[in-house]
Amino acid sequence: MKVVKFGGSSLASATQLEKVFNIVKEDETRQYVVVSAPGKRNAEDTKVTDALIKYYKEYTNGKDTSQSQEWIINRYRSITEELDLNEEIIEEIARDIISLATLPKSDNTFLYDTFLAAGENNNAKLIAAYFVKKGLEAKYIHPKDAGIFVTSEPCNARILPSSYDKIEELRNHNEILVIPGFFGITKEGQVCTFSRGGSDITGSIIAAGVKADLYENFTDVDGIFAAHPGIIKHPHSIPELTYKEMRELAYAGFSVLHDEALVPAYRGKIPMVIKNTNNPKHPGTKIVLNHTNENVKVVGIAGDSGFVSINTTKYLMNREVGFGRKLLQILEDLNISWDHMPTGIDDLSVILRSKELTPIKEQEILKHLIQDLQVDYAEIEHDLSIIMIVGENMKNQIGVTATATKALSENNINIQMISQGSSEVSIMFVVNQEQEKQAIKALYNVFFN
Amino acid sequence: MKVVKFGGSSLASATQLEKVFNIVKEDETRQYVVVSAPGKRNAEDTKVTDALIKYYKEYTNGKDTSQSQEWIINRYRSITEELDLNEEIIEEIARDIISLATLPKSDNTFLYDTFLAAGENNNAKLIAAYFVKKGLEAKYIHPKDAGIFVTSEPCNARILPSSYDKIEELRNHNEILVIPGFFGITKEGQVCTFSRGGSDITGSIIAAGVKADLYENFTDVDGIFAAHPGIIKHPHSIPELTYKEMRELAYAGFSVLHDEALVPAYRGKIPMVIKNTNNPKHPGTKIVLNHTNENVKVVGIAGDSGFVSINTTKYLMNREVGFGRKLLQILEDLNISWDHMPTGIDDLSVILRSKELTPIKEQEILKHLIQDLQVDYAEIEHDLSIIMIVGENMKNQIGVTATATKALSENNINIQMISQGSSEVSIMFVVNQEQEKQAIKALYNVFFN
Repeated sequence: MKVVKFGGSSLASATQLEKVFNIVKEDETRQYVVVSAPGKRNAEDTKVTDALIKYYKEYTNGKDTSQSQEWIINRYRSITEELDLNEEIIEEIARDIISLATLPKSDNTFLYDTFLAAGENNNAKLIAAYFVKKGLEAKYIHPKDAGIFVTSEPCNARILPSSYDKIEELRNHNEILVIPGFFGITKEGQVCTFSRGGSDITGSIIAAGVKADLYENFTDVDGIFAAHPGIIKHPHSIPELTYKEMRELAYAGFSVLHDEALVPAYRGKIPMVIKNTNNPKHPGTKIVLNHTNENVKVVGIAGDSGFVSINTTKYLMNREVGFGRKLLQILEDLNISWDHMPTGIDDLSVILRSKELTPIKEQEILKHLIQDLQVDYAEIEHDLSIIMIVGENMKNQIGVTATATKALSENNINIQMISQGSSEVSIMFVVNQEQEKQAIKALYNVFFN
Repeated sequence: MKVVKFGGSSLASATQLEKVFNIVKEDETRQYVVVSAPGKRNAEDTKVTDALIKYYKEYTNGKDTSQSQEWIINRYRSITEELDLNEEIIEEIARDIISLATLPKSDNTFLYDTFLAAGENNNAKLIAAYFVKKGLEAKYIHPKDAGIFVTSEPCNARILPSSYDKIEELRNHNEILVIPGFFGITKEGQVCTFSRGGSDITGSIIAAGVKADLYENFTDVDGIFAAHPGIIKHPHSIPELTYKEMRELAYAGFSVLHDEALVPAYRGKIPMVIKNTNNPKHPGTKIVLNHTNENVKVVGIAGDSGFVSINTTKYLMNREVGFGRKLLQILEDLNISWDHMPTGIDDLSVILRSKELTPIKEQEILKHLIQDLQVDYAEIEHDLSIIMIVGENMKNQIGVTATATKALSENNINIQMISQGSSEVSIMFVVNQEQEKQAIKALYNVFFN
């Protein structure tokens, strides 16, 4: 059986909801439907979630909230009317939206989360009602009843491991269950939302909990592209990705699903597919634990800017036990997270994101390197980009690196550094930021054209 | 002015000493001559140093030492007779050799060092006498009088920094000074030898001390080869190397000079040249601080076997602050020195020499990785080789990596790992041990043929 999740743009209008209905109806194994709040209908539109934030601010600042309330209720009403749903549902939604402005303002850690969650929660009720009207046996279920119990961290809830047993009981339902995404319930019964991409997280948790055969994540794109469409014109959609590959691509700038949304499904060994609500015939991108096709070597090319490199040189460095560990300790003491550490014999570099540093921290690092580690030379190099060639099947495949470095070399791109880990899920190149796009183009051309 | 050092094979016979004399005579700036003990005259011969070890063992075990004494004295005598030196010198050498067996055996930490040093010490006396006979103004000088004061670490002496001022005073001498290599004198006046390659160390110390223009190290090869002659037939001799390049080559299996011998000259900014006593017209290999010719990209290809890789995988590893540092701490706690640490996003490997590990240590590492660091996967991969392409001028040169990886790929060599540090003094490849020679051949062909 499948868990299906629809994003905001898939739920923005009656037309979109019709597509969603057809998708759910078409396959009777689609038993769990996780929904976001209504998204934008066009570029100028406002997301319901953003309207709820405005409503929350007005309420907590003691301002008039009637206009916001009306806008939000009308937003749902326009959908219920177009879908010809009965008045009952929009009245229930209206009561819920208005009741938010009666909640206690003080000593209410979860007030913001409760306002925001109303977007998803009411949409789930609306969609369940619509499904029922269209003749599907469907039922709205609140996260509390679904068993989504979370930690008490406002805007950053994490699922409690004990929840999964309760979620598994959802398998006893025969109806299609419509579940609002984005939030769970604390042990104290409070609404608490997940971090960014929250509905994706709910879908992933439900999929893991009910031990789904597949977690279908419907968006408005034909899956995950092999390179950024802003750099490569019409990049092809990746048919199959492993979770590991997805991680590497996400690290270097791909932003389809957040790690938090991948983890529950990954740990539960549930395959996932990213599909397009507006083009459901397209197979989309399947995210799996292991590749089914071993012939695909390179699945994608990612690039991300904003990296720096701390470069050190010390004669006889490699004979100094603990040198690398001490260097990493300096960074850890400054609460700096690092990414890579390419080494020569007497040279060692640490690659990290520039957001980890401040001018003061840079001075501190250089001071410690010179005074404590007594390096011969230390510098911090800015404006670097990381380019990743990702593909688990590159492992033991001769020639991928040769092809890549040749392509970069022929395009006059200077490789500052290379690091290729033992897993060979990816090959990483560091280049100057200004050559990043050029490098991605060169690699895309050689591996995909 | 120059410091000239001659190795054992250059001093093994009268014929060899004649070559040495001609080399010293030919250039009047060759003012400091550092000498080893007489080496082997042919493959079956015994080095004087090895004979001294045997003599030491007999003496300390209370056995008869007369045969050893006689062999050693005769070894020197065969040279003095061939060179037609007067009896005085061989008598002095004989007295010294015999007197070793009168030194106190107990409470004598430096007895072994004193026995061994006699090889170099007597040879220096012999050579000085020979030079004088041939009309050169030459003089033997004992390390004590030369100012070579060292730490009290038997067989592993290190120069005391304060020595250099005293050594500089050697510049006041007008004669050619013949200095025995391999040992210095402790503050307490004891003979204490350097580690392996000890005469090279003495030469380097003298060169740094007298601020020589050049340190000439005479061996029995035409300099340093660009690849191992056992793998590449007649590899070409490298005309110019930097100290950094020398370090990288030495790391990966080149064994011309030990690090200890490079450091004093490097720190003193003294260029060095490796020349052949048997072919002194050959320019040999110059070791410099900075290249004079920027067109030479790759200077040498080195390879060394006996490496292992500790491979770990953990989902979301790169978001775990301190992961790498903790892993290195595990190794440090087990007193294990590591060499490289290539990284993916959720993968991290540590490359080290297999001699750092034992089966018990391997079990310990795996236990800590799984229990303390909670990795998803850990393995220790054996039988790996490191291949290094060395050349400081590769930096900012586009295409060296492309050429190298293409050559390896075309020869069906699977690159297990790549690490290229920020300095770009070298590019390192990890391959399976059985492909090491093949890899070196492929790289040598593409860069040197």
